[in-house]
Amino acid sequence: MTTARPAVRRDAEASRAAIVKAARHLLARHAHGDITLRAIADRAGVSPPLILKYFGNKDALFASVMDFEADVDVLLDAPLEELGRHMVRCVLSGQSERGADPILRIVFAPLHGAQGDILRANFRTQVSERLAARLSGTDAGLRAELAVSLLLGLGVMYGIARGPQVRAADIEAVVDRYAPAVEAQLVPSA
Amino acid sequence: MTTARPAVRRDAEASRAAIVKAARHLLARHAHGDITLRAIADRAGVSPPLILKYFGNKDALFASVMDFEADVDVLLDAPLEELGRHMVRCVLSGQSERGADPILRIVFAPLHGAQGDILRANFRTQVSERLAARLSGTDAGLRAELAVSLLLGLGVMYGIARGPQVRAADIEAVVDRYAPAVEAQLVPSA
Repeated sequence: MTTARPAVRRDAEASRAAIVKAARHLLARHAHGDITLRAIADRAGVSPPLILKYFGNKDALFASVMDFEADVDVLLDAPLEELGRHMVRCVLSGQSERGADPILRIVFAPLHGAQGDILRANFRTQVSERLAARLSGTDAGLRAELAVSLLLGLGVMYGIARGPQVRAADIEAVVDRYAPAVEAQLVPSA
Repeated sequence: MTTARPAVRRDAEASRAAIVKAARHLLARHAHGDITLRAIADRAGVSPPLILKYFGNKDALFASVMDFEADVDVLLDAPLEELGRHMVRCVLSGQSERGADPILRIVFAPLHGAQGDILRANFRTQVSERLAARLSGTDAGLRAELAVSLLLGLGVMYGIARGPQVRAADIEAVVDRYAPAVEAQLVPSA
């Protein structure tokens, strides 16, 4: 049964993804300490022991949700001259296709007390500073934070405020309108 | 004692402001239904009856926190040709001087269930559509949402992610860098 393994792996990946998605959903609505393993399991449609099997414990699961590394690998996966359009498209397609966003979960930091500080520290090193390392010229750190601000705002408008205009617009049309602002932060001022 | 009245009025205004600030703080960290009048009063340093005196009841207080009208009066108080710079400066100075933001509380909509839908509806009509009404040309509604996205993102970076670069930078230097992106949404494409 050589075909069984890929199917099992797909199921495992789907379960892991459902668990992470459930944890993200709850972390956007409840303080860290108020979320039980049972609530995550119920929402993900799995058993609590399966969460322990995949993630070890609740804090390890939360740590994985609070890590931006894998998402930012995808977000930054373009040459610098295409990076502005790529990042804007990445936010919009994640939001429209999966209701997910590579970086937007930083907005829920105030819910999580000391864990919020971990989330902020991860965000700084794994998102802003990682982008800054790609940039040359003066004020690269500030320009990286402003480029990331642009992406965060688009995510808030699309996924949280649910702006009807941006949700109805063609993704490439929004990329055309919005990416120049990101690109302007990626290159040094003349 | 003609001087007593202004002093009393100042105290009342300070108390009202403290109550609204406390309610905003708690609404950024807890679900709407979990917040008690007592918790708001304790945080504001006032008595629960004083909240009732000023706002009538808890829901009326929350309704006033969820209203953007007064903040947007200030945010939009500039002629169109200065509006981009004015709005960016408004977000940055509110954040740096008072730890407040005219529109950022929309990010906490997911915490509030059905109240979150009220917050979103207010945001659409009182923020995005009000800005759109100032704009001419094609796609004014979309361009307004994108301009608002830019302001939201800056507020998230400054007030929630607490980006060290943007917080350390001179406000006018950030206005110089960021406002052109807002201005580009305020005028029709050539």
